[in-house]
Amino acid sequence: KFYEELDCSINGMYHISCRKEGREVFIPFSFLEKYYEVYGKLAKSKGHEQFEWSHSYSKVFKPTTPYNASGMFMYFSNYNVEVRDRVKCVSATEGVPVSTQWEASGYYYPVQVAQYGLSHYSKNLSEPPPKRKILEDGNMLTAKWQVPKGAYIKRKYDSAKLTRVLEFHSRDGPGISLRLKQGTDLVLSFDLRFLSANGSLTFFLEDRDRSQIFPVSFTCSSVLVEAHNSSGNYSTIYGMGDCQNWKKFTRDLHIDLVKGHVLSGRGKKLSRTKLRIHHLLLKGNGQLDNLTLASSNHMDMFYSSADWLVRHQDSSGGWPIGVKRKIASGRADLDPGWYSAMGQGQAMSLLMRAFYRSGKPHYLESALKGMQPFSKSSTEGGVRAYFMNQYPWYEEYPTVPPSFVLNGFIYSLIGLYDVVSLAPLNQVGDAQLLFDQGMHSLKKLLPLFDTGSGSVYDLRHFTLGLAPNIARWDYHSTHINQLLLLSTIDSDPILTNVAERWISYMSGKRAAHN
Amino acid sequence: KFYEELDCSINGMYHISCRKEGREVFIPFSFLEKYYEVYGKLAKSKGHEQFEWSHSYSKVFKPTTPYNASGMFMYFSNYNVEVRDRVKCVSATEGVPVSTQWEASGYYYPVQVAQYGLSHYSKNLSEPPPKRKILEDGNMLTAKWQVPKGAYIKRKYDSAKLTRVLEFHSRDGPGISLRLKQGTDLVLSFDLRFLSANGSLTFFLEDRDRSQIFPVSFTCSSVLVEAHNSSGNYSTIYGMGDCQNWKKFTRDLHIDLVKGHVLSGRGKKLSRTKLRIHHLLLKGNGQLDNLTLASSNHMDMFYSSADWLVRHQDSSGGWPIGVKRKIASGRADLDPGWYSAMGQGQAMSLLMRAFYRSGKPHYLESALKGMQPFSKSSTEGGVRAYFMNQYPWYEEYPTVPPSFVLNGFIYSLIGLYDVVSLAPLNQVGDAQLLFDQGMHSLKKLLPLFDTGSGSVYDLRHFTLGLAPNIARWDYHSTHINQLLLLSTIDSDPILTNVAERWISYMSGKRAAHN
Ligand SMILES: [Ca+2]
Ligand SMILES: [Ca+2]
Repeated sequence: KFYEELDCSINGMYHISCRKEGREVFIPFSFLEKYYEVYGKLAKSKGHEQFEWSHSYSKVFKPTTPYNASGMFMYFSNYNVEVRDRVKCVSATEGVPVSTQWEASGYYYPVQVAQYGLSHYSKNLSEPPPKRKILEDGNMLTAKWQVPKGAYIKRKYDSAKLTRVLEFHSRDGPGISLRLKQGTDLVLSFDLRFLSANGSLTFFLEDRDRSQIFPVSFTCSSVLVEAHNSSGNYSTIYGMGDCQNWKKFTRDLHIDLVKGHVLSGRGKKLSRTKLRIHHLLLKGNGQLDNLTLASSNHMDMFYSSADWLVRHQDSSGGWPIGVKRKIASGRADLDPGWYSAMGQGQAMSLLMRAFYRSGKPHYLESALKGMQPFSKSSTEGGVRAYFMNQYPWYEEYPTVPPSFVLNGFIYSLIGLYDVVSLAPLNQVGDAQLLFDQGMHSLKKLLPLFDTGSGSVYDLRHFTLGLAPNIARWDYHSTHINQLLLLSTIDSDPILTNVAERWISYMSGKRAAHN
Repeated sequence: KFYEELDCSINGMYHISCRKEGREVFIPFSFLEKYYEVYGKLAKSKGHEQFEWSHSYSKVFKPTTPYNASGMFMYFSNYNVEVRDRVKCVSATEGVPVSTQWEASGYYYPVQVAQYGLSHYSKNLSEPPPKRKILEDGNMLTAKWQVPKGAYIKRKYDSAKLTRVLEFHSRDGPGISLRLKQGTDLVLSFDLRFLSANGSLTFFLEDRDRSQIFPVSFTCSSVLVEAHNSSGNYSTIYGMGDCQNWKKFTRDLHIDLVKGHVLSGRGKKLSRTKLRIHHLLLKGNGQLDNLTLASSNHMDMFYSSADWLVRHQDSSGGWPIGVKRKIASGRADLDPGWYSAMGQGQAMSLLMRAFYRSGKPHYLESALKGMQPFSKSSTEGGVRAYFMNQYPWYEEYPTVPPSFVLNGFIYSLIGLYDVVSLAPLNQVGDAQLLFDQGMHSLKKLLPLFDTGSGSVYDLRHFTLGLAPNIARWDYHSTHINQLLLLSTIDSDPILTNVAERWISYMSGKRAAHN
């Protein structure tokens, strides 16, 4: 066939070079990619090369079982919250991630804390049980500590812990060390307190080639995380805060080291499988118990989140967010101290699971208190807005005028549903009413988020008279996943109809035109 | 460069054949055309072949002067209402087009009647003055009639018309004929009445090759239009209704003939320039005056519409639509007799121009009465709906629940504006209030029609929970043209901002995603 170059005039505005073969005109993908924001790549399939055209880059997870409030949270078992770039590190003081998304110095973001916990809860259910090895419990299981001259260790009964613990004192020596068997497990947990004013616990990680040693230290200080560089020898330091009282720590040393690397400008490329733990070193005078090495410790991390939420809930039931948030010009900024319906809801989802698993009533109490901002207007510090004074909406960002963010609203509904499902019947309080009202609003307003070829993230175009804020594909698929989840607990066909239509948009289908 | 065939996998769902040249992949337009509904054609530009890619097929008319209520109506001078397929013919009894859009037998559709009038009003302003030749006025200008034996003509004073007219009586003969000079003008007007029970006036059109003769007759009958075929000799017949009283007729004989052709199955391909008028034939006993041949007669056609509207307005001020209308399942059908805010508004635009041009107060009175349905709920036979019980909307289709059609609403606003602009100040009535309330709703709800890549025709997705009803490009450009018109009389930036964004969608731009 005859094949030639051909000039293509695009909307009479500019020209590109096309090809012609018979009556067929061929358009270069490099143009289409930008014009339509479509994705393509060359790939091998069954031995021959093909070009893979993708309308979207995201995935939908079709639920196979009805949603269970005590089960995995959506597809959060795929999340690795602490790995994200916008997570500065996991605080050794608080045991939860610190966000830098809207403030570079770092802050605790309740949504992120809850998602960290929910992802570990879900991983615990989806993954095989972890390998665990207790190295030292001060009693039956004792480790072979190397104690330099002048230093000492002893095992003694602790009346606060009601168990025998390891007491150590390094004096002025190089520290008390423990050589660890080479293994791939990098999640350490331990109970620790210091009797002296300062002291530290340092883990030494080694790369597979044994060419480098990476120390990660935990010290009695209020520093969040620091990276020190002494002539090319980097060390990473986390502050444990006040060390005088017993506290349990669970650390993923790979994460702890990577965050130090990033901080020191060495980048985040440090694969988990490349690392081995080599030894640890105790300094100062203190007590240690339940030193454990594991392949993972999702439940500890989950409870770290739950406990953080219990500790940081304020008297209005909210988890205040300590950073200013600017959503769009023309809208009142959110001043530090605002609540997010999404944060409240995700926290409730987490706390109800903590209550379900532990039976401890303070988790339930905290979840129930977490509903209070749902009944308070966002103009008065709550999270409740109304669409046209009629349809209540729980605001991820309780701006004035409201923003009506879809995904955050649905997360808040799931939180309410979790309370309804797992709280004792006589303690459910407003949860059922809030959930029902929210579902009613969702079903009514859902079509306003449908663009005919995708979805909008929020209704800012309506409240501020702006261009629609199109949801990028990962938010679009979040919308779908959320609707599919809700469709397993509410049979109203609007949920599946919209979800199915929105799925079809992801492969290029569009709503009909007239 | 090396050029090869390459398999393209589309969203993992099916395969098409692409081309590869170096690192560039070329996609066949025949695929893109269907996938994206984009338009393309090979064309010559400055002597070389190029491929013209068009995102949309419609055009925007940017207004160069502020909208003027007595001037041209939008770009309606480009409209040829009576040519449209859904127009069965222009009734000789009523002088206005008959629609078959929703009922094949034909009905008068006030929107179409008004648009017919507004297009001729606008053409009258945009086109050069017509050529006109009075052939017979019974007085100064007399034609050379061929009167067979037994028949007669005479010119006499008519006390009803207060002028001399031509009286004719064909008796049993072949009829009284008038040979017409060959010319391209095909718009005939005449005043006619019959003194006998039956009678007819027939025009004979000839094609340029003089190979065929096409008779078009006007008879004293109630038939709308008929096509007769007597062994290959076709004739087209229009009924003038009751013929006993003087009535003025203005006929575009090309249109009249084409509609007969379509009716008889001969298709609509009959170009205006191919036709000549050859002669006319009078039968029966009657009187004729002001027989005029013209290149066009827009103002007569305009007044035909205005008079039809005055005659057919009911006591509630509405122009009832006599056909059932089904909009979408789940919505109450409109039973015959419904009003359309668009029909009311377009009629008001027309009538106010008729009042402006003629000074005749009955046009003004009719326009003012036409506002009555705007204050009556569509649940009670009016056209007024509310978005969420808050924002009034004038419904093109006053369904329950409402449909919130955008273009019809804006046409109704323009009608109200025309009343405000051209009515004497002390007679404006509710027009200003209705206009202001409508503009307020429009500005608030306009963003809900924005899909980020086009516009929706209505809000059925919201009121019925369906897929969005995307506006095809011609409706999209109508939206834009209407907003640009309004922007010349209201400086609120939302109007121009939305219009400019919607214009950009027509060349492939999209609203940003997050
Ligand atoms: Ca112990
Ligand atoms: Ca006369």
